Amino acid sequence: MIKKCLENVRETTPLVHNITNYVTVNDCANALLAIGGSPIMSDDIDDVKDITAICGGLNINIGTLNARTIPAMFAAGEISNKLGHPVLLDPVGAGASKLRTETAKGLVEKLKLSVIRGNISEIKALALGSNTTKGVDADTLDAVTDDTVDNAIAFAREFSRKSGAVIVITGAIDLVVDKDKAFVIRNGNAMMSKITGTGCMLSSIMTAFAVANPENITEACAAAVCAMGLAGERGYEKLGDGGNSTYRNLIIDELCNMTPEILKDGAKYEMR
Amino acid sequence: MIKKCLENVRETTPLVHNITNYVTVNDCANALLAIGGSPIMSDDIDDVKDITAICGGLNINIGTLNARTIPAMFAAGEISNKLGHPVLLDPVGAGASKLRTETAKGLVEKLKLSVIRGNISEIKALALGSNTTKGVDADTLDAVTDDTVDNAIAFAREFSRKSGAVIVITGAIDLVVDKDKAFVIRNGNAMMSKITGTGCMLSSIMTAFAVANPENITEACAAAVCAMGLAGERGYEKLGDGGNSTYRNLIIDELCNMTPEILKDGAKYEMR
Amino acid sequence: MIKKCLENVRETTPLVHNITNYVTVNDCANALLAIGGSPIMSDDIDDVKDITAICGGLNINIGTLNARTIPAMFAAGEISNKLGHPVLLDPVGAGASKLRTETAKGLVEKLKLSVIRGNISEIKALALGSNTTKGVDADTLDAVTDDTVDNAIAFAREFSRKSGAVIVITGAIDLVVDKDKAFVIRNGNAMMSKITGTGCMLSSIMTAFAVANPENITEACAAAVCAMGLAGERGYEKLGDGGNSTYRNLIIDELCNMTPEILKDGAKYEMR
Repeated sequence: MIKKCLENVRETTPLVHNITNYVTVNDCANALLAIGGSPIMSDDIDDVKDITAICGGLNINIGTLNARTIPAMFAAGEISNKLGHPVLLDPVGAGASKLRTETAKGLVEKLKLSVIRGNISEIKALALGSNTTKGVDADTLDAVTDDTVDNAIAFAREFSRKSGAVIVITGAIDLVVDKDKAFVIRNGNAMMSKITGTGCMLSSIMTAFAVANPENITEACAAAVCAMGLAGERGYEKLGDGGNSTYRNLIIDELCNMTPEILKDGAKYEMR
Repeated sequence: MIKKCLENVRETTPLVHNITNYVTVNDCANALLAIGGSPIMSDDIDDVKDITAICGGLNINIGTLNARTIPAMFAAGEISNKLGHPVLLDPVGAGASKLRTETAKGLVEKLKLSVIRGNISEIKALALGSNTTKGVDADTLDAVTDDTVDNAIAFAREFSRKSGAVIVITGAIDLVVDKDKAFVIRNGNAMMSKITGTGCMLSSIMTAFAVANPENITEACAAAVCAMGLAGERGYEKLGDGGNSTYRNLIIDELCNMTPEILKDGAKYEMR
Repeated sequence: MIKKCLENVRETTPLVHNITNYVTVNDCANALLAIGGSPIMSDDIDDVKDITAICGGLNINIGTLNARTIPAMFAAGEISNKLGHPVLLDPVGAGASKLRTETAKGLVEKLKLSVIRGNISEIKALALGSNTTKGVDADTLDAVTDDTVDNAIAFAREFSRKSGAVIVITGAIDLVVDKDKAFVIRNGNAMMSKITGTGCMLSSIMTAFAVANPENITEACAAAVCAMGLAGERGYEKLGDGGNSTYRNLIIDELCNMTPEILKDGAKYEMR
C-alpha cells in the first residue's frame, strides 16, 4: 500500500497549490519536485481562486501568515472544497500566538480539511476548547513516546472524528490517525530537527500523496511520513562530517531518488 | 560575441534590481552573484523608485505577485524606462490565472521592455489577443521542437515587433528572437526541470547580461541562455547519485566558476 | 570569553524572533539552528507581539521592508524593550533609499537597541545627520582598513554612545565597538561576499549570542563575528572547486559543527 501510494504520485505528477511561509518555501517546492509532484505558490486573494482550480490539491501553511494572506487561505480552501480537492492544513505555531491559533481554528471550522499535520503542541492548541479532548488526558501529552502513544492516538482519533480530517502528529514517533485506523511510524533521524522546514516539506509532499491517492488518504499520509523519515535516515548515512545545510540537501536528494521499492523496504510502521 | 558578453558582466558587476517571487529569490540572488552581477531586492512602492535608480537594470518576475507588489512593478518599470535601464519581464504563470495574465499584459503595454522571457505557454498567453499571432499557427505551438522551431521563431518575431522586446522562449530548445535575428540554443539538461527556479535564475542573470551589453541585448540574452544551459550540463556531470537539491547547488556553482572561455567552447547555438 | 559565549548559546538554545527579508530568511533560520539557537519568523502586526513575548530576543532586518512589515518592526521592538529582550537592528540598504534610511533611523530613535550591525556605508547612513560624527572624519571612511581602523573605531564609539547600542561594522576587517571597548576582528574569507546573506546570517546568530550572554553583549557580538568568519575560513578549506552555492552550505555546516574549542582556537581578534 505504502509502495503503491508513491507509485501513484510518480505516475500522476500531482499539481499542488501551496499557500505557505517564505522561510521554507523553496525547500517545499524542491521537495515536491523531488517526490514527483509539481508546485505552484500563490497567496493573493485575486490569484488563488484561479490557481487552486487548476491544481489537484491545496497545502495551507500558516508559518508566516499575515493580514493579506489569511483571507486568501480561506478563499482558496473554499474553492478547493467545492472542487473536491484535498486540503491540508499545517498550523505552524498554533498555540504560540492568538492570531495563529484563531486562524488555524477558523480554517478547521470553515473548511473541509482532508489532513491536519503538526507537532503535538500545535495539534493540542487546535483541539483545545473544541470539546474534542474529553476523556483524553491531552494536557499531559507533551510528546508522543512509547508510554503515551495509546493516549495520543485516542486524542488524535477524537479530533479526527470532530474535524473530519486525518490527523498527523509528527515528532520522534509519528502518528497518522483517522476515525478507524492509526499508523505509528518510526522513521526519521533526530538531526532532522536541526533543519528548518522538514515539517513544512512533509506537509507539501503529503498533499501530493493525498492528491494521487484520493481513495486512501490515510495511507497516503502514512506513506508521506515514511518517505520523509526514510529520506532523513538515508541522507544521514551520507552526511559524514557535514552539517545541517548539507543535510537539508541530502534529504531532498533522497526524496528525489527514492523508488517505491526503497520506500517499501525502509518504511517502519505498525498499525494500531 | 557570446564570450565577450560574459566578459562584460564580469568586468562591470551590473547591479540588478529584482522584484521577484519569494520561492526562488535566494537562488536568483546567488545566481546573480555567481555570474558576476550584484543583486538588490525591493518590492515596496515607497522603496522601488530609489532602489531602481541606483541599479543598472530591472528584473520583474510575477511568480508570487500580489496587490502590494503589482503597483511597485509598474512604478519601478517607469523609473527604469526614464533612466534608460533595461527592463526584463518574466511572466511566471501567465495564462494560469487572470491576475497573472492581465498584470503581465499591462506591463507589456505600459512599459518599454527590453526582454520578455518565459516558456511557450506563458509567451502565448501574453501574445494572444494582442493581434500578434496573425498568420502564425501559435495555437498548435505547445513546445518548441525541431518540427515547430521555424513556426515558433515567426511567432516570437511578430511578438518582438509588436512589443519592442527581445523574446526569449525557454524549453528543451531555447529561442532568443528579435525583429531581425534568432538564436536557436540547445544547451541544458532535462533534469533542470526537477529544480524550482532555473527559469527565474535565468531571468535574473539575463538582466545582468543586458545591463553589461546595452548595445547587444539580443546577443546578451543568448549568452545568458547558453550560460545557464551549460551550467546545467556541467553540473549534471558532477552530480553522480545526487538529487535535485544538490543539482541546484552545482548549477549555481558552475555559473560561479564559468570563464568566458568555457562559455564560448560550450555554447551550442545556431542563428536563423 | 569568546569560548564561553558559544557555550552559553549551546546550553540555552535561545529562541530568536526574526523580522527579516525573504531573500535570505531560510539561511538565517538554518544558521540559527546550526549555532544552537531556535528561529521564529513572524512579521504581521497582529502576530509579532505574542511571538516576540515568547522569544528571548529580536532581530530586525530591513532587507525587504514594506508598508505592512515596518509597523510590525516598531511594535515588536517596543514589546521586546518592555520585556528587556535584546533587540538587534540590521539596517540593510540604509543610505540606498529614503525609506530604508528613515525606517532605520526611526528604529534607532524609538527603540532601545542592543546592537546595530551593518557595513560601513549603512552605519554611516544611520549616524549621519544625528550629530554623532563630529570630530570624526567619517566621510572618508569608505572601508575599514589598517589605515582607517582607529578613525572607524572613534566613529563607531560616538554612535554607540549616542544610540546606546553596540555598533558592529563588518567588512574585510570587522569592528565591534561599545562606549568603552573595541574588538578588531580579522576572521573571514573574501569569497563570502559572493554569497547572499552572510551579513543577515551573522545578524541572526548574533542575536542568539546576545540572548545567551545578557551581561556581556559586546563580547557576545564579537564571538558571533568570529564564529561567522571562522566558519567562512573553514568552509573555504573544504570548498575545492565548488562555487558560491556549495560555499553557502559549507559555511552553515561549519557553524553547525563548531565547538567552543574550535572557536577559541580560530578566533582572530585584538582589543583596542
